[in-house]
Amino acid sequence: MLNFQIFIPTRIVFGPGKLAELGTLPLPKGKKAMVVIGESGAMIENGYLDKVQALLAKQNISTVVFDNISPNPKSDQVDEAAKIAREKGIDFIVALGGGSTIDASKAIALLTTNVGKCWDYMQAGSGGGVNPENPAAPLIAIPTTAGTGTEADQWAVINKSGGIEKISLGNDSTFPTISIVDPELMVSVPPRTTAYTGIDTFFHAVETFLSTAHQPMSDMLALEAVHLSSHYLPMAIAEGDNIEARTVMAWSSTAAGMCETLSRCISQHALEHALSAKYPDLPHGLGLAKLSVPYFKRLIPESPERFEDLAMAMGYDTQQFDENMRATVFLEGLRSLLERAGFNEESLKDYGAKEEDVAELVEIAEQTMGKLFEFTPAKMEREDLECIMSEAIAG
Amino acid sequence: MLNFQIFIPTRIVFGPGKLAELGTLPLPKGKKAMVVIGESGAMIENGYLDKVQALLAKQNISTVVFDNISPNPKSDQVDEAAKIAREKGIDFIVALGGGSTIDASKAIALLTTNVGKCWDYMQAGSGGGVNPENPAAPLIAIPTTAGTGTEADQWAVINKSGGIEKISLGNDSTFPTISIVDPELMVSVPPRTTAYTGIDTFFHAVETFLSTAHQPMSDMLALEAVHLSSHYLPMAIAEGDNIEARTVMAWSSTAAGMCETLSRCISQHALEHALSAKYPDLPHGLGLAKLSVPYFKRLIPESPERFEDLAMAMGYDTQQFDENMRATVFLEGLRSLLERAGFNEESLKDYGAKEEDVAELVEIAEQTMGKLFEFTPAKMEREDLECIMSEAIAG
Repeated sequence: MLNFQIFIPTRIVFGPGKLAELGTLPLPKGKKAMVVIGESGAMIENGYLDKVQALLAKQNISTVVFDNISPNPKSDQVDEAAKIAREKGIDFIVALGGGSTIDASKAIALLTTNVGKCWDYMQAGSGGGVNPENPAAPLIAIPTTAGTGTEADQWAVINKSGGIEKISLGNDSTFPTISIVDPELMVSVPPRTTAYTGIDTFFHAVETFLSTAHQPMSDMLALEAVHLSSHYLPMAIAEGDNIEARTVMAWSSTAAGMCETLSRCISQHALEHALSAKYPDLPHGLGLAKLSVPYFKRLIPESPERFEDLAMAMGYDTQQFDENMRATVFLEGLRSLLERAGFNEESLKDYGAKEEDVAELVEIAEQTMGKLFEFTPAKMEREDLECIMSEAIAG
Repeated sequence: MLNFQIFIPTRIVFGPGKLAELGTLPLPKGKKAMVVIGESGAMIENGYLDKVQALLAKQNISTVVFDNISPNPKSDQVDEAAKIAREKGIDFIVALGGGSTIDASKAIALLTTNVGKCWDYMQAGSGGGVNPENPAAPLIAIPTTAGTGTEADQWAVINKSGGIEKISLGNDSTFPTISIVDPELMVSVPPRTTAYTGIDTFFHAVETFLSTAHQPMSDMLALEAVHLSSHYLPMAIAEGDNIEARTVMAWSSTAAGMCETLSRCISQHALEHALSAKYPDLPHGLGLAKLSVPYFKRLIPESPERFEDLAMAMGYDTQQFDENMRATVFLEGLRSLLERAGFNEESLKDYGAKEEDVAELVEIAEQTMGKLFEFTPAKMEREDLECIMSEAIAG
């Protein structure tokens, strides 16, 4: 019998040009905001930081900028920003950037109102397991990439500084208060970053659809995101300034982000977090892309009907095939999407991945993101996981 | 281009037996709650009030009961309850009952933290147009019928005491903080009440799907609710203790309730509010049922593709029909649903409706719920509206 919870308190303001509403929307209480951006300088070069500061100024908000967030953001970066936020009496955080910036900002918001360090609050691996005493400071998320869905969920994925752990942190207070999803901010994203972030959306949708934690609303949103991202991602990569493709990918990202809250990702994401923890330059989406075929081909026998649903969402007429072949049509579609999105020209080895790390990688995945194995529709033995990892590195 | 807002901050806890979670869920701040129930005594006879009070007592919450809410709840009842809530220093409201109880409780919650009377805050008709200074007190909604969807939206529909106006009130603070949707509480609903509330769900979904305010997420949820309610409503009416049918109808109600927020209802709802304002014993769902065929047959030429989508959601293979006939399959499905749900044996005349009231009724609809005409996909002239009303009364 149906049995679920729906809780996504974020106000999502979606549409091309909607950034302008930052100048008029009711904002969280207070007059001092910290604007968090990535270290690359793109937010400054593109003029986005100026725009955001000007819109906040219209609402009499003064700003402090923190610009030291790297891809796969580090716990030390969170601690550094939070220290400044506490010292300056910051009222709320504005995250302007991709998933790394927004995830780091969620952790910064939590540390703005709580004592201690980021890793104290991690609930897995070597984390301190402390429950935060206070809710996080309010957060306004302004994503500039379409992918992680972090604008619509409570999760912050942080890498341990000086370690090889990449863990999710989050509670009811770490949902953004407001997320402004403006596809016009995404037209400047380079082709490969578009591919890496966009494929993450596709896998959030696929995984949360297959998850044992799925529910009716996540099913709808996931099939929508699978449908749209599998059709529009290659277009967004090839034609960066195609606002229709950017808009559809942005909605896919947000829809799949909601699924990460309504349902849960499964162990493919755990395996990938181990990869990008071990090889910090590896883009998360590339890790997922390389894991996906070895991973899903092992899951298909466990839930063939749901794989057939995914294949249909990707636009395949599965009825053309023999009944016992319909689920595997998903793999056809997946291979085609990876090829059209340019993943066949890339390898995990380019980022330092080696066959001899396989056992360690699986170990890290289980220790840091073990929860996700519980939501996976089939039990996978250590041996299976090592095979998947090995094939991903070879592929 | 896609352009929308998503904001539903309510925590929806859904499933048979979930009422028990009231004893453990984190509750709003404070120790004193007002439990609001309907005047019929059903909540007492069924033992639901005792259960709710016991669960709240487990969390050290003391309760005051307000039991004077009628169907089509009146502004005087809201004012009376709010006066008590303010005097007793109530921290939050618990609404236990159908749509009338929950809607009245939203208004009570708003008046608990604001001065003046309910009608002062109405933004249409003879309402005072005052903007509330403070957010409403927190509200926990526990629906015992499946229909209005009020557990998942901010709207409170209140009738003016001593008047013939029925108007919606609501803002960001009038969403329930928590809604516990437990289909086990719905098995005791009598067959005709099941029909009246269930058909309301169906029309919320149909109207919000056709609405000019529709968006991708409301489209998905609306088609889900149309699909499920058109198949399960007759079963829930015929077999009240069928927990599967009750569960599916409860989810349909919640899904369509979300659509009322994500999209907006259209003028069929405005016309019905006039009917049940003028004839206060008329069940809202019966009013809608009688308006529906005259109303939708006039809308079909305006958006044939969306009517075809609705027909498909109801389970019809529209491809069997000539292209220009596919949209009208919706009317077939609607007529069949109304018949299976027992509406052919009832008439608006049983509740005092008269042909000579037609002009006045249309006038009331436009004056009190004029906003909904703006979301209707076609302009309907006064003459059309009078014809619809006249056919509804004759039918």
